[in-house]
Amino acid sequence: MDSLNELINAFSSLPAIGKKSATRLAYFILKSDRAIAEKLAHDLLLVKDTIKKCSICGTYTEADVCHICSSINREKVICVVEQSQDVEMIESTGEYMGYFHVLGGVLSPLNGIGPKELKLDRLVDRVKNENIIEVIIATNPTLEGDTTALYISKLMESYGTKVSRIASGMPVGGDMEYIDKQTLSRSLKGRTAL
Amino acid sequence: MDSLNELINAFSSLPAIGKKSATRLAYFILKSDRAIAEKLAHDLLLVKDTIKKCSICGTYTEADVCHICSSINREKVICVVEQSQDVEMIESTGEYMGYFHVLGGVLSPLNGIGPKELKLDRLVDRVKNENIIEVIIATNPTLEGDTTALYISKLMESYGTKVSRIASGMPVGGDMEYIDKQTLSRSLKGRTAL
Repeated sequence: MDSLNELINAFSSLPAIGKKSATRLAYFILKSDRAIAEKLAHDLLLVKDTIKKCSICGTYTEADVCHICSSINREKVICVVEQSQDVEMIESTGEYMGYFHVLGGVLSPLNGIGPKELKLDRLVDRVKNENIIEVIIATNPTLEGDTTALYISKLMESYGTKVSRIASGMPVGGDMEYIDKQTLSRSLKGRTAL
Repeated sequence: MDSLNELINAFSSLPAIGKKSATRLAYFILKSDRAIAEKLAHDLLLVKDTIKKCSICGTYTEADVCHICSSINREKVICVVEQSQDVEMIESTGEYMGYFHVLGGVLSPLNGIGPKELKLDRLVDRVKNENIIEVIIATNPTLEGDTTALYISKLMESYGTKVSRIASGMPVGGDMEYIDKQTLSRSLKGRTAL
């Protein structure tokens, strides 16, 4: 059944879906009402047709400029994140009232991703032109994320803007017995006064 | 972003895909080339348009009668399985050379699935009309699968056809230390002479 195999391949091309899951999904589509296949097919294309990147911060939005960049009441702080999802995550904490800048990746010379690919000049322009008082770098605490954070902080040196990095350490509810050494080491280095 | 939420909901409606996975998939679609969304959307509908159930055994097929039922060289044995995927699994072993019958489920009175819903009369008709010498019941070794197997074996009593049940016991590579009691108990009951 060629069409079934094609659907299995299509599902397999999605992240974290292996051959076995893809097969289960394809058979589910076969077994279930046509409306389910139609809704998914429709929504897939609708998303590609209606959502683009914010021309200012680079997050996904249905408008030219996202609702965060459009807001004039936010603090003059930019939080730099790797991807659009991270904006949603930080917004969901309710702790942050500033703006965002989405890099769309991290520096990774081996994969050919340098400062140009991340359009870091656009971040610099925003810091210069929008009277930004602080840049919070919220890339992930990975090798690439840390390198990117360091690079951005160097870039900002000449503008006198405060640059900070989100804390890295033990997650809430974590157990020291199961935590890796690097995280524990960071937890100690980044300790705060009580 | 309504269209993004709709896509997340559509992915969430698939089996074994939770909110978090659905969100990751939706963002993947956003980030990646339009061709990926188009292929998946196309394949979803193609499968619904081209694949139906075999009019004889009930497995999924692009023709009226599947390639197994169309074959005249197979042994006069029918293997009864719960669903179409199981046909593929058994075929992939290369050990079985007979025909199949797909129930499309198992007896489950609580869910309103009785002998009528599984169209067991069609299985009986086949056994009567196709000179079947053996019926191998390959429903899963679950409570419902076992009940269904027992029910079918009672149905077949009056036709003098041999009825068998696939073996249930320790999986190959399994470790007795981690196996559940019921499986171990079945392994002992179903022991074979060496």
